[in-house]
Amino acid sequence: MLTVFGSVALDTTRTPFEIRERIMGGAATYASLAASFFSPVSLIGVIGNDFPNSYYKLLEKRLNLEGLVRHSNKKTFFYDSSFDYDLSHRTTNITELNVLEDFEPAVPTGYINSKYLYLANNDPDQNIQIISKFKHPELIVCDTIEFWIENKKTSVIKMIEKTHGVVINDQEARLLCNNSNLVKCGRELLSYGPKFVVIKKGEHGVLFFYDDTIIPIPGYPLESVVDPTGAGDSFAGGFMGYLIANKSKDLLNDIQLLKESILMGSIMGTFAIEAFGTDKLFETTKLDIMNRFELYKKMLSV
Amino acid sequence: MLTVFGSVALDTTRTPFEIRERIMGGAATYASLAASFFSPVSLIGVIGNDFPNSYYKLLEKRLNLEGLVRHSNKKTFFYDSSFDYDLSHRTTNITELNVLEDFEPAVPTGYINSKYLYLANNDPDQNIQIISKFKHPELIVCDTIEFWIENKKTSVIKMIEKTHGVVINDQEARLLCNNSNLVKCGRELLSYGPKFVVIKKGEHGVLFFYDDTIIPIPGYPLESVVDPTGAGDSFAGGFMGYLIANKSKDLLNDIQLLKESILMGSIMGTFAIEAFGTDKLFETTKLDIMNRFELYKKMLSV
Repeated sequence: MLTVFGSVALDTTRTPFEIRERIMGGAATYASLAASFFSPVSLIGVIGNDFPNSYYKLLEKRLNLEGLVRHSNKKTFFYDSSFDYDLSHRTTNITELNVLEDFEPAVPTGYINSKYLYLANNDPDQNIQIISKFKHPELIVCDTIEFWIENKKTSVIKMIEKTHGVVINDQEARLLCNNSNLVKCGRELLSYGPKFVVIKKGEHGVLFFYDDTIIPIPGYPLESVVDPTGAGDSFAGGFMGYLIANKSKDLLNDIQLLKESILMGSIMGTFAIEAFGTDKLFETTKLDIMNRFELYKKMLSV
Repeated sequence: MLTVFGSVALDTTRTPFEIRERIMGGAATYASLAASFFSPVSLIGVIGNDFPNSYYKLLEKRLNLEGLVRHSNKKTFFYDSSFDYDLSHRTTNITELNVLEDFEPAVPTGYINSKYLYLANNDPDQNIQIISKFKHPELIVCDTIEFWIENKKTSVIKMIEKTHGVVINDQEARLLCNNSNLVKCGRELLSYGPKFVVIKKGEHGVLFFYDDTIIPIPGYPLESVVDPTGAGDSFAGGFMGYLIANKSKDLLNDIQLLKESILMGSIMGTFAIEAFGTDKLFETTKLDIMNRFELYKKMLSV
């Protein structure tokens, strides 16, 4: 069982072509839904009194929501952003923390034997605390964001020390390691202790660092992007889910499987961005996913 | 024999770490030098009365310069540019066309049986004219730049119609095809007639289009970049040189060889940018090149 801890949000997303208001979003939402195609997923998070019941019901069908707290006096974390014409740059319009402001995450008893843990871009101190609640975690992977790097850099590094893997985007890696060269950043991140590091470069794919090995992996060439929100989180979820579902005994020493899981992460990222919000993660089928995954592997094998 | 037609320049290149004045540069210079590790190369171009003899002698050791005209009354094409802190953005300070202004390229008789032709980012009408001078060209590949797309778009497309392959960077592809999505751009470029299209994305690698096949290829993860000038031109030269040197009978139908040649192009790009100007293309050895090429192939085969 995979436990995912992170934000569940209501997003207003504006592209030059369409505006969608208060749709379901959040890092944990995307990651959980993407992972759920491959593995049972248990969510830890919080929503407010304005979180539509219809959304809750959609999530309930796919995820274990025992750890999703509903706050009766506050609103759901809200994020309003706009994309530019070619959907490559996002501007934040409004961020309302709401329920996240003083959230103290708790781990339900039913979760504490979960072997696999994905910690989204939460407060690194909270992520560290969450890790300590699990009995025998075999695989802990975390993400982070600029805000925490700028405000709690020491905690971010402490958090990374406690994980087996880091999934982080290029700008965050550069900021955290204070170096513009991603190869150097990857090495630096590995030196904090994790077994592997995945630096995400959006449509350009990832750099995968594992011991002394660096593997550049190109992105899947996608023709139609509707809403780039959630690509990185869906990547992380797809990666974790596939890895868990196909694990052999020594999960962390199977570099081929780790690489295949990265490919699946990329594929889940492509599905996320082909429609607004999480729509496509509800509409798509496992067959669609496997077909695109096979096509991607074929492209890379020429 | 590969014939390369394009600019030979004197460059003043400014990075935040060092400034080098009037060093040897130009699209054809980089492409020819990169290709010369694999194949005999004949150059078509023009230099002025200020082109240092020491530079000429360096070129002479590696290339057939019969088609390199020296203008006695004018200066060499001069380009002065500055890079930002992370060497990812270039600002043009000065462009002096000088000898290029009214250059009428001629093809020496000794070149006209050349089977392989690389046309750098020249005036597309000149490239078209040059193509017509060759007797039995088997492989014609061209590049272009924003200036020609903006000023001679019809000629650029006419030029592409007459080639077997296009090597173009991402921004140019977007501008030419008026579409921000590179997959759509690649398909559009193929529809103009060439057998293959390579869209270069700098450090992020390339997208390779061949019939209905799209192959994303990641860049080689390079740790130290000194001067990004010439990466794309060296890519094109390395690609052409390796392709010619390893060709089988039906060069244009060997997708594996085309892909391997793209890998070698990327490798030659990495060498070009590890030192200022063309320095590394003179200092490096075939053994260094083959070692990095094998390492790159190994990375991609995991």
